[in-house]
Amino acid sequence: MTYRMEEMTWPEFAEKKDRVVILPVGAVEQHALHLPICTDAVIAEQFALRLAEKIDGVVMPPLSYGYKSKPLSGGGPLFPGTIDLNGETVIRLVYDVLMELVRDGFTKIFIMNAHFENEAFLVEAMDLVNRDTKGAVFLVESNWWDPLPEEVIEKVFDQVPFPGWAFEHAAVTETSLMLYFAPWLCHLERMAEAPPAEALPYFRYPLKKGDVPETGALASAYSSSSEKGEQIVEAVIPELVKICQREMPGE
Amino acid sequence: MTYRMEEMTWPEFAEKKDRVVILPVGAVEQHALHLPICTDAVIAEQFALRLAEKIDGVVMPPLSYGYKSKPLSGGGPLFPGTIDLNGETVIRLVYDVLMELVRDGFTKIFIMNAHFENEAFLVEAMDLVNRDTKGAVFLVESNWWDPLPEEVIEKVFDQVPFPGWAFEHAAVTETSLMLYFAPWLCHLERMAEAPPAEALPYFRYPLKKGDVPETGALASAYSSSSEKGEQIVEAVIPELVKICQREMPGE
Amino acid sequence: MTYRMEEMTWPEFAEKKDRVVILPVGAVEQHALHLPICTDAVIAEQFALRLAEKIDGVVMPPLSYGYKSKPLSGGGPLFPGTIDLNGETVIRLVYDVLMELVRDGFTKIFIMNAHFENEAFLVEAMDLVNRDTKGAVFLVESNWWDPLPEEVIEKVFDQVPFPGWAFEHAAVTETSLMLYFAPWLCHLERMAEAPPAEALPYFRYPLKKGDVPETGALASAYSSSSEKGEQIVEAVIPELVKICQREMPGE
Amino acid sequence: MTYRMEEMTWPEFAEKKDRVVILPVGAVEQHALHLPICTDAVIAEQFALRLAEKIDGVVMPPLSYGYKSKPLSGGGPLFPGTIDLNGETVIRLVYDVLMELVRDGFTKIFIMNAHFENEAFLVEAMDLVNRDTKGAVFLVESNWWDPLPEEVIEKVFDQVPFPGWAFEHAAVTETSLMLYFAPWLCHLERMAEAPPAEALPYFRYPLKKGDVPETGALASAYSSSSEKGEQIVEAVIPELVKICQREMPGE
Amino acid sequence: MTYRMEEMTWPEFAEKKDRVVILPVGAVEQHALHLPICTDAVIAEQFALRLAEKIDGVVMPPLSYGYKSKPLSGGGPLFPGTIDLNGETVIRLVYDVLMELVRDGFTKIFIMNAHFENEAFLVEAMDLVNRDTKGAVFLVESNWWDPLPEEVIEKVFDQVPFPGWAFEHAAVTETSLMLYFAPWLCHLERMAEAPPAEALPYFRYPLKKGDVPETGALASAYSSSSEKGEQIVEAVIPELVKICQREMPGE
Amino acid sequence: MTYRMEEMTWPEFAEKKDRVVILPVGAVEQHALHLPICTDAVIAEQFALRLAEKIDGVVMPPLSYGYKSKPLSGGGPLFPGTIDLNGETVIRLVYDVLMELVRDGFTKIFIMNAHFENEAFLVEAMDLVNRDTKGAVFLVESNWWDPLPEEVIEKVFDQVPFPGWAFEHAAVTETSLMLYFAPWLCHLERMAEAPPAEALPYFRYPLKKGDVPETGALASAYSSSSEKGEQIVEAVIPELVKICQREMPGE
Repeated sequence: MTYRMEEMTWPEFAEKKDRVVILPVGAVEQHALHLPICTDAVIAEQFALRLAEKIDGVVMPPLSYGYKSKPLSGGGPLFPGTIDLNGETVIRLVYDVLMELVRDGFTKIFIMNAHFENEAFLVEAMDLVNRDTKGAVFLVESNWWDPLPEEVIEKVFDQVPFPGWAFEHAAVTETSLMLYFAPWLCHLERMAEAPPAEALPYFRYPLKKGDVPETGALASAYSSSSEKGEQIVEAVIPELVKICQREMPGE
Repeated sequence: MTYRMEEMTWPEFAEKKDRVVILPVGAVEQHALHLPICTDAVIAEQFALRLAEKIDGVVMPPLSYGYKSKPLSGGGPLFPGTIDLNGETVIRLVYDVLMELVRDGFTKIFIMNAHFENEAFLVEAMDLVNRDTKGAVFLVESNWWDPLPEEVIEKVFDQVPFPGWAFEHAAVTETSLMLYFAPWLCHLERMAEAPPAEALPYFRYPLKKGDVPETGALASAYSSSSEKGEQIVEAVIPELVKICQREMPGE
Repeated sequence: MTYRMEEMTWPEFAEKKDRVVILPVGAVEQHALHLPICTDAVIAEQFALRLAEKIDGVVMPPLSYGYKSKPLSGGGPLFPGTIDLNGETVIRLVYDVLMELVRDGFTKIFIMNAHFENEAFLVEAMDLVNRDTKGAVFLVESNWWDPLPEEVIEKVFDQVPFPGWAFEHAAVTETSLMLYFAPWLCHLERMAEAPPAEALPYFRYPLKKGDVPETGALASAYSSSSEKGEQIVEAVIPELVKICQREMPGE
Repeated sequence: MTYRMEEMTWPEFAEKKDRVVILPVGAVEQHALHLPICTDAVIAEQFALRLAEKIDGVVMPPLSYGYKSKPLSGGGPLFPGTIDLNGETVIRLVYDVLMELVRDGFTKIFIMNAHFENEAFLVEAMDLVNRDTKGAVFLVESNWWDPLPEEVIEKVFDQVPFPGWAFEHAAVTETSLMLYFAPWLCHLERMAEAPPAEALPYFRYPLKKGDVPETGALASAYSSSSEKGEQIVEAVIPELVKICQREMPGE
Repeated sequence: MTYRMEEMTWPEFAEKKDRVVILPVGAVEQHALHLPICTDAVIAEQFALRLAEKIDGVVMPPLSYGYKSKPLSGGGPLFPGTIDLNGETVIRLVYDVLMELVRDGFTKIFIMNAHFENEAFLVEAMDLVNRDTKGAVFLVESNWWDPLPEEVIEKVFDQVPFPGWAFEHAAVTETSLMLYFAPWLCHLERMAEAPPAEALPYFRYPLKKGDVPETGALASAYSSSSEKGEQIVEAVIPELVKICQREMPGE
Repeated sequence: MTYRMEEMTWPEFAEKKDRVVILPVGAVEQHALHLPICTDAVIAEQFALRLAEKIDGVVMPPLSYGYKSKPLSGGGPLFPGTIDLNGETVIRLVYDVLMELVRDGFTKIFIMNAHFENEAFLVEAMDLVNRDTKGAVFLVESNWWDPLPEEVIEKVFDQVPFPGWAFEHAAVTETSLMLYFAPWLCHLERMAEAPPAEALPYFRYPLKKGDVPETGALASAYSSSSEKGEQIVEAVIPELVKICQREMPGE
């Protein structure tokens, strides 16, 4: 039995109409020297699958490509391997997928996001779908880190200080999650020391080479471990379940 | 002498080509029972004018209408008086204005934002302008609260706890700023007690009546004062000047 | 008491749902050596306020930025200070604002235009709103000069000949209106003699430097006065009131 | 020998690269009881052909479908047979055609318009082409009536008063031109008396049945004749030739 | 009596509301040395007129300009005289025309296509209209060659081999049809020997000069005749009638 | 070592700049009772990976979602599980991805398509990229079936007749490929007898329930086998390699 819509035949999917559909959204984005480019997509899909397991949901094929990666939150178009969609493209892509799910009869949709920069455009698409369906569909969007309890953050950052979510790019949480989800794609031996990145509290163009350290990391990944990844997952999944119970009728 | 582009004749504006142009961006959004709908536009323009004074800049006519107001950060389309532009509209509007400034020969542009939800769409427009001008223009976007020093936050929240910026909607900082900038538009006597708003750490549709307390406020404005407004302004303006000096050649 | 929506709190605006909402539309456009760049926006808003006073209406924040200024009617992108929006941007901007007013429950909307080139795009937006609301909303658009009675034109042009509305850019009527509405923004001492502009009865690109006289004026402003401004206003407002009475049910 | 691009083979067209290309633009629009729906397209193309003959130009296939027909200028969507394109569609259509001509090496393009409502959108497309080709192409747009000398208007309106161009819809000039260009498509016997249409000096939605007299005519076509059509043509063509000589290098 | 909508007055068109409306779609595209640029438009319209005659239908003004001509199917932007619309432009153009017909009360629409590359974009427009009208309109799109019986193909290709429809560009079928429909536009004496064009079973950019033989023909037109054109028409029209009978209620 | 871009770190990807990048494009589409919804995406990616292996290329994350599935070629929106993007969305999505690859320095891009309906929109995106990069990038798009040699088709269809590619949806070739690529996702035991689907040689809306047999299959999958899948792959890959050698400089 599978929770992945893509592995189902259409009648298997059709039977799930009253269930929550989960759409994972990632990005194609540099993740320093030790993590793969697909990091956000893998994380989004893995959270989605574990959530689906708990609530008998269905996981859609992830949107692998996402909105532009910004230096402030760790990526930036200056690195090869960061493939950025324009804002209008993300809005239309997500809008089309959501509307098709609605036409197929689904009314409970959960967008599982793992790339911060996506959020405003995901929510814009949701807003347009809400308007065009006159509020008939239950739509939730959450980043995986938003429901993470404070005490878990403290446990995970037992050796390096928590740099804030904006700088948690290819750092302790993402590295730990990848070590837990897909260790064969991690190269801890290549992990570079991340000099403390300068936090610009504003946006500025043109971007400069030095906006992101040359490794692509914004904070140290030192002390990452599969166990910490598991801790995060174990803490987040119950919160995501609660969100579904609170917001999706019948869950 | 004026810093407002709108009050200049065209030759006066033409003489400013080597100066920083500041574009204030606000929103038409409910601001509880005691603040006017134009709050964000007034605040954006007032910060812009004070910055212009320090750096001999020029202030463009504000973009009064902004992106959708979200319940999470205090507004919401459920209140009459919140006039929301779609994301694509904001992107195109800002793109057009920036490109025209570039065509007029200006190369240093500062976007002064006072409505959180605008930011992703402002930055998308900047990104497109940066791409289409091949990086020839210096573009900065800042919210007024981002450069506010920690110690000022503490001073301002001497009587009520700081609820986080997302909830600072029609609350202590905005009310204090409006008391300082435009006291005749404030109605402290109508100020309602703000029950602690529930912070949803995710986005959800359809919106519900209870998402925002019925007054429209997300946090208490109690203890607001013109003096606190002045304190914020006095602390922020030097930071904005520093940003200009750091990012705009020749400033 | 105010007629400006921006100065109201949301409950004050909400009470006006059965009233006529007036949306002033201007332009950011060169206005010769003696008038400010905001001339069209000021004029649009001032007519709107005076109309609101007569019919207990509400005036929205003006759309300060408008469609491209054309040489034929007096502006042109060749002057710094003329900030032109693309046609699609104007259509989307106006569409969004109108639809939001409709969602807020307003059904009587008056667009007060002061920049000729805006008109086709304003009407396109109205047409789309009319289609998407299935005709449920009463929409009127008028330029301020359209309802001006012939005899007032004659009185106003007692010393210089009326050059036609297309050439009335920074000329007698606009200068007189600005002297009446905002004399502190007028610089009569800088008023240049306007050589008779050549009227091309067709559109042509590329534009040439000589398409508009180098001052930016298309016709003489000589003989302008605040009194003439007042005369125009006194003649136009009753006509605008009549339009509302004729087209808006219950007015 | 032909002046119609559509009747040429591609090498014949390729030889014309240094000549003026003329793009006729019409509309699919009701034209009262006695004129065919294609009236504007026929008139645009016939003027284009006669101009081409004088200047050895090339006439493109006409854009038969045009922008929305407005009651103010005589059409309106209330009549079956009026097929209106949206503004954005017209802009894109004209933009694409012009850019392709530029890519084919043509640098002198004349847009011959016969439907008033098209103009703002045609000029927007020209403006965008001018911007994207950096002013390398000579573009002119003219309505057929704009260069018509005053004295010919007087001769043509020897029996009925000239109602203004806005009301000259299916009236004396269009009927006379059609009698001259394509008499087999005219049905003078069905010509209805046109009650004087009420001229609204503003735009208003929703449209009402009575906005246009039920025949679809806005002014009397009485006294129309093929001879008058010929007179108009003979007066306009030399003016169009002069425009080409003035604006198109080498003509 | 006419079947062309453009030659009708509006009341004549209004009477046809319960009939099938046929929209011919062509292209402005090089057609080798011996056929005119309008070949596809002429063929589309002529098939449409003959179909209209059989089913008492109405023929709309043809969409003369179509989607990009591709080397694979015989055209290509490398030849002057090929004027290509972008995909989005075609979708919007066709969408607008279809929606206006629906608003005029027509419910049976047949798109008669003569330019292969148009098809995907025509069908996209139909799909959007179907969605927005909730399936209330009967829409058919057919190329003229699709319903051609196998035995007629054999008869027509009695002297040269059938190269496949993709290569039938300015070749035997199009030349024969043009000899039948509009012999005065054909120049058989200029007909060039077409070297066998190389069929790329994939799409590739940039295009190369040699992608299409320098004449513009992809296959031999040798053995074309007006009689063969007539044969094709006589075979196709009854098939088109059958399609209408099968798909359009009441036909 | 991996050929998947998503599994690489950014420096590994950056080293591949002179190699061919392969973008697999699939669809989320019903594939009868025995194949999973992701069939097209899996097939596209698997062909891409095998091609990459031969030419030392890089495989991008697949575009899992594609253009609308049409009844004529086997899918249709009438089945849950078919998630269709609009045409404009596909064009923008592919355009953005290609342009980002170009910005990253890649100049040889191969689009590997496995969903017929995508093709026109993929090629439109390529055309726009070619135009905007002035032909500086080598772009190829191929369906997997286009280069399949005739003799392999004959071998594969040794027991059931070849129904034509349009009907090869969830039939012998796709089933054999999936048995070869991902047997664990195939359910041969659920394979239904496919009644001969009626081939409409035209497009028609609204779609009808009977347009596609209720299983979702258009032709029999009987006689499918992993061996046949392998045969197809072995025959196609060398052809794809040849295309790269012919079209991509340095391959």
